[in-house]
Amino acid sequence: MPKVSSKGEQMPASPIRKLTPFAEKAKKKGIKVYHLNIGQPDIETPKAMLDAVKNANINVWEYTASEGTESYRTKLAAYYSKLNYNIRPEDIIVTLGGSEAILIALRSCFDIDDEILIPEPFYANYNAFACQTDVVVCPIASSIETGFALPSVKEFEKYINQRTRAIMICNPNNPTGYLYSREEMEDLKHLALKHDLFIIADEAYRDFCYDGKTFVSPMHLDGIDDNVIIVDTVSKRYSACGARLGALITKNKDVISTGLKFAQARLSAGMLEQLAGEAALDTPDEYFEKVNKEYTERRNILVDSLNKMDGVYCPMPGGAFYVVASLPVDDAENFCKWILDEFSFENQTVMIAPAAGFYATEGKGLNQVRLAYVINQDSIKKAMICLEKALQEYPGRLVQ
Amino acid sequence: MPKVSSKGEQMPASPIRKLTPFAEKAKKKGIKVYHLNIGQPDIETPKAMLDAVKNANINVWEYTASEGTESYRTKLAAYYSKLNYNIRPEDIIVTLGGSEAILIALRSCFDIDDEILIPEPFYANYNAFACQTDVVVCPIASSIETGFALPSVKEFEKYINQRTRAIMICNPNNPTGYLYSREEMEDLKHLALKHDLFIIADEAYRDFCYDGKTFVSPMHLDGIDDNVIIVDTVSKRYSACGARLGALITKNKDVISTGLKFAQARLSAGMLEQLAGEAALDTPDEYFEKVNKEYTERRNILVDSLNKMDGVYCPMPGGAFYVVASLPVDDAENFCKWILDEFSFENQTVMIAPAAGFYATEGKGLNQVRLAYVINQDSIKKAMICLEKALQEYPGRLVQ
Repeated sequence: MPKVSSKGEQMPASPIRKLTPFAEKAKKKGIKVYHLNIGQPDIETPKAMLDAVKNANINVWEYTASEGTESYRTKLAAYYSKLNYNIRPEDIIVTLGGSEAILIALRSCFDIDDEILIPEPFYANYNAFACQTDVVVCPIASSIETGFALPSVKEFEKYINQRTRAIMICNPNNPTGYLYSREEMEDLKHLALKHDLFIIADEAYRDFCYDGKTFVSPMHLDGIDDNVIIVDTVSKRYSACGARLGALITKNKDVISTGLKFAQARLSAGMLEQLAGEAALDTPDEYFEKVNKEYTERRNILVDSLNKMDGVYCPMPGGAFYVVASLPVDDAENFCKWILDEFSFENQTVMIAPAAGFYATEGKGLNQVRLAYVINQDSIKKAMICLEKALQEYPGRLVQ
Repeated sequence: MPKVSSKGEQMPASPIRKLTPFAEKAKKKGIKVYHLNIGQPDIETPKAMLDAVKNANINVWEYTASEGTESYRTKLAAYYSKLNYNIRPEDIIVTLGGSEAILIALRSCFDIDDEILIPEPFYANYNAFACQTDVVVCPIASSIETGFALPSVKEFEKYINQRTRAIMICNPNNPTGYLYSREEMEDLKHLALKHDLFIIADEAYRDFCYDGKTFVSPMHLDGIDDNVIIVDTVSKRYSACGARLGALITKNKDVISTGLKFAQARLSAGMLEQLAGEAALDTPDEYFEKVNKEYTERRNILVDSLNKMDGVYCPMPGGAFYVVASLPVDDAENFCKWILDEFSFENQTVMIAPAAGFYATEGKGLNQVRLAYVINQDSIKKAMICLEKALQEYPGRLVQ
């Protein structure tokens, strides 16, 4: 029997997936499980976006141009102009989800064993994408004490060497919810220019910034056009995760021409999705105002509840729909398993993600968890009651 | 300015894309261009498939399970059972097009610099996928004189070494249309077993077999379950290239569990496409009978016309909707460019693909072209008249 590649073993297993069997077991016992573990929002997809698919009048479900349809890229460029990005249609490659945009960015900028700096904790799949493309991840520690602010320039520079090709950020951040300030973005800019690095910015959560805080993209900074690659997606913006429609955006012509070769190899992104994506761009501001108001309220409930619990600490993040909290437990993965497997309160429990999986450094984040506020406020309240009770009962609770 | 990776340079440029500007120029001059260059059929997508998308009653366009929905995989397994493949839902990973299935297969089975044997000429993007995954392609020569039959076992064995991991075939073949016989498939089986290799079979064109010939899959052969990986797609079967819905199918549990990690990293295939794919599986046999009749007639017109031209030779293929023909020209790429750029007959011309791009071996296929019979019979006839005239007028014509 022929052997599989060594890649499979190198690929990190998702910490959430390990818990799934326990969640299923709990459900089978009739326990209601509140899912704060995944980034699948309950928010409705804009009707205009779904209608665009319903009303598409086609006879042949054809390939589109590999870089995306002219029509969608033109409208996307206009959308980015409203965000004060200086983007033309030819600066955009439409991708099969933000995931593919990340893969194309890595393949376009990295040779085997080149290195990428990523503030840690970070979206767990970055590890998987780096593994697939033979890119070496250098995690740069951020800490819960500073609310997961950008590590200092000095900290980054400790890890920059000849093989370093890029810094990757997710802003606002998954898993921490942290929104980088203009000063932090300026720091990144100087780092990138000084060391001739790409900045790959995953802006999947760009539309979710709270408390009147301003979102700053590297696209807003002067003089680094050639260094910046933006990864975008409709997944969170329009609650359309299952559309698998993203984009890679850059003013760097070499990245576009290299990236396009990868896009051409897989021929096309989804035809109907591009029609949907185009329609989605007309979504009125009120939709986002309503969604952001809802997320802000959920965040406040979640963070307040967490911080009221004995021994729990959760910084108040400025964006996205995640928080990372520290718990008074020996091992958060055990705890997350235990609340599904052995605990329930009034026949309810909660599923949350151990944060260790968002760290590349072994042994970090062991007492932290990520919570996604993608369920309604009432459910969040009930979930928090469960969590508080669970922490009180958990045998591995650390004595304060 | 940071430099891009060396991958871009290594990636072969598509021979067809180089011609596109010339086709556009011709169109601007008011010349009608018959497109025999690409694999985008004009056949209508089954209405039930399009209706499934129209009638999908969803509020949130959600992720599905990374391996594909239970429902779609169950129905796919039943479909494969009808083809006499012994396949369960858990042997299937639903992918974003056949392209992603190929990428996942390569990543799952190959470490850096491992080698894959592919009968040449082959689908040009295999080169691109191999380049992305750092797999080394060893082309095994097939020849127009034998109609592009499978190279002999001896020929394959010349190139098998410690790094060889798999043989890849496309059956029926793109670009040659060749349909492998049972004997040829048995040869492949013995090679695979003897040298402990995977057989990766791209069956995108499985539904297009002519003249009553039987399609034989490696899934039909006994005793090689663990060696076989099938790449499938809805693109050609249902003329739904723009759906980007494919599948990787294997009984090898290690390949499934490794492949699943790559699938999980990109979270999900398209949600609506899986509904469409499910509906498509109910397409009645009459649809395929009608389509196959149409393709057979087109093939006959095309091959007969080609063979009637002075100095042209085209074997009669058993499947798919491509042929490779040899032309009496110095350099088919020049010729393909010339017919777009400098030639027209009654204000019409034809776009065909130079076959050199389907060879990995430098200098091979220089006088060959690939033609796709994806336009109607009348247009094929007119295109053939253009081609004949062009060959008569072409300054680089070889004197017979």
